[in-house]
Amino acid sequence: MDITFARQVLAAQPFSELLGARLVSLGDDRAVLEIPVDDRLRQQYGLVHGGVLAYLADNSLTYAAALGLGPNVLTSGLTIDYVSGARDGSILRSTAELVHSSRRKAATRCLIEIVDDAGGAKLCAVAQGTTLATSAAD
Amino acid sequence: MDITFARQVLAAQPFSELLGARLVSLGDDRAVLEIPVDDRLRQQYGLVHGGVLAYLADNSLTYAAALGLGPNVLTSGLTIDYVSGARDGSILRSTAELVHSSRRKAATRCLIEIVDDAGGAKLCAVAQGTTLATSAAD
Amino acid sequence: MDITFARQVLAAQPFSELLGARLVSLGDDRAVLEIPVDDRLRQQYGLVHGGVLAYLADNSLTYAAALGLGPNVLTSGLTIDYVSGARDGSILRSTAELVHSSRRKAATRCLIEIVDDAGGAKLCAVAQGTTLATSAAD
Amino acid sequence: MDITFARQVLAAQPFSELLGARLVSLGDDRAVLEIPVDDRLRQQYGLVHGGVLAYLADNSLTYAAALGLGPNVLTSGLTIDYVSGARDGSILRSTAELVHSSRRKAATRCLIEIVDDAGGAKLCAVAQGTTLATSAAD
Repeated sequence: MDITFARQVLAAQPFSELLGARLVSLGDDRAVLEIPVDDRLRQQYGLVHGGVLAYLADNSLTYAAALGLGPNVLTSGLTIDYVSGARDGSILRSTAELVHSSRRKAATRCLIEIVDDAGGAKLCAVAQGTTLATSAAD
Repeated sequence: MDITFARQVLAAQPFSELLGARLVSLGDDRAVLEIPVDDRLRQQYGLVHGGVLAYLADNSLTYAAALGLGPNVLTSGLTIDYVSGARDGSILRSTAELVHSSRRKAATRCLIEIVDDAGGAKLCAVAQGTTLATSAAD
Repeated sequence: MDITFARQVLAAQPFSELLGARLVSLGDDRAVLEIPVDDRLRQQYGLVHGGVLAYLADNSLTYAAALGLGPNVLTSGLTIDYVSGARDGSILRSTAELVHSSRRKAATRCLIEIVDDAGGAKLCAVAQGTTLATSAAD
Repeated sequence: MDITFARQVLAAQPFSELLGARLVSLGDDRAVLEIPVDDRLRQQYGLVHGGVLAYLADNSLTYAAALGLGPNVLTSGLTIDYVSGARDGSILRSTAELVHSSRRKAATRCLIEIVDDAGGAKLCAVAQGTTLATSAAD
């Protein structure tokens, strides 16, 4: 999948636009998706809301799956484990990898970090997903 | 946990405000959280973005866990399986239940439906979560 | 799916025979699978090993999925959350339900309990799974 | 954690003995656990039963977590995605890594392969887990 096309898909997602998501890179088996940290994204303790991390997992895992399955995919499900609060930093970054893909199904996983202006990164969440080629997704 | 207090927590979450989430009911072991469907929440095929469903799972599971653990909790992780696209309807509703709670940990699960104006509901996603009392959450 | 056929499938699984699994009931959307508790199944603290509970989740979720998809299925993945140790009791029982099924994919979940001779049951684990019709499973 | 001690723990688990599990290596953030493939472990299609892979995930993820948390741990939950059937080969191998650990909680993940006598390995499953230090596990 071409990054120009992949960015058009992202731009066609109103929810991704609402969150300010950007596709930073797309390799053979790796996709990096970022969101600028913003006070609209926080919960009551000042941390970035878990739902934002879950969005980032969902979308980055789907991109990683498309590297194996092609662009017509639907993510079937994902698991996210939160490992530390995302508070200080300017960017949330998910680095997603394609772990396995067959004709119809891909397994993916990602690490989500919060990155500060000095480039320091702290791991916030780990996720794993399964995506189906649309023809198999019902 | 009192629903008035629980709604204050929700109102103190900027991300929940951004999505328009509202806590509809809170029982002994059940929490119902809703989001009005809105074009800002969709992806490129016109479906509500999976990340929105994941947000709803995360937040409703956390409320259900607080019914067992009290208000000081952090959700440790969740699994969401998407079962059908959420397109037509005016409300996304998660009905979350407390399945088990010990002193420090709660297990929860939810069903997420899209509801139309006639009250018809279609199941969109199923999720399961684990939440820790804050003292145990690190 | 007919329970006689379903029991033949179970009897054709050497690993299920090794663990002594038996299919207790099969309804329209519910399957109950049991294992007699046995010292071979324990870990170093005397609890039934988590892997035994995971086996029971896997197999009972697959039966519940077959109630929607028919007998040719492969479970794609599952999540299990352990909620309390399984130590005292004579039977491990998983009650699995079909939550949703489409032509190609089913979502299921189960509760796993340890049951004592007086019929008392204690919840040990909660699981959720996704199963694909074999034609879609690759 | 010392591999000699870790192997004593494994030897003290009757269920691990029943399956023939052996701890092959234990590094700073990595544990490798193997089971010899054996006809007792199969399901009705001749594949190794998913429950065996789930056992291997559970136990190897727990070892990886102990590398961060110390020996007193209980695995809280795990997600396993099956990616291809495990049929031909003599060894099932899980390579588990510690992804993050805090004082009370560790996040781990593993890849499970079937390995043939020529050393060829095929990925069968991917898993992710959360483990709590016993004092936090309830």
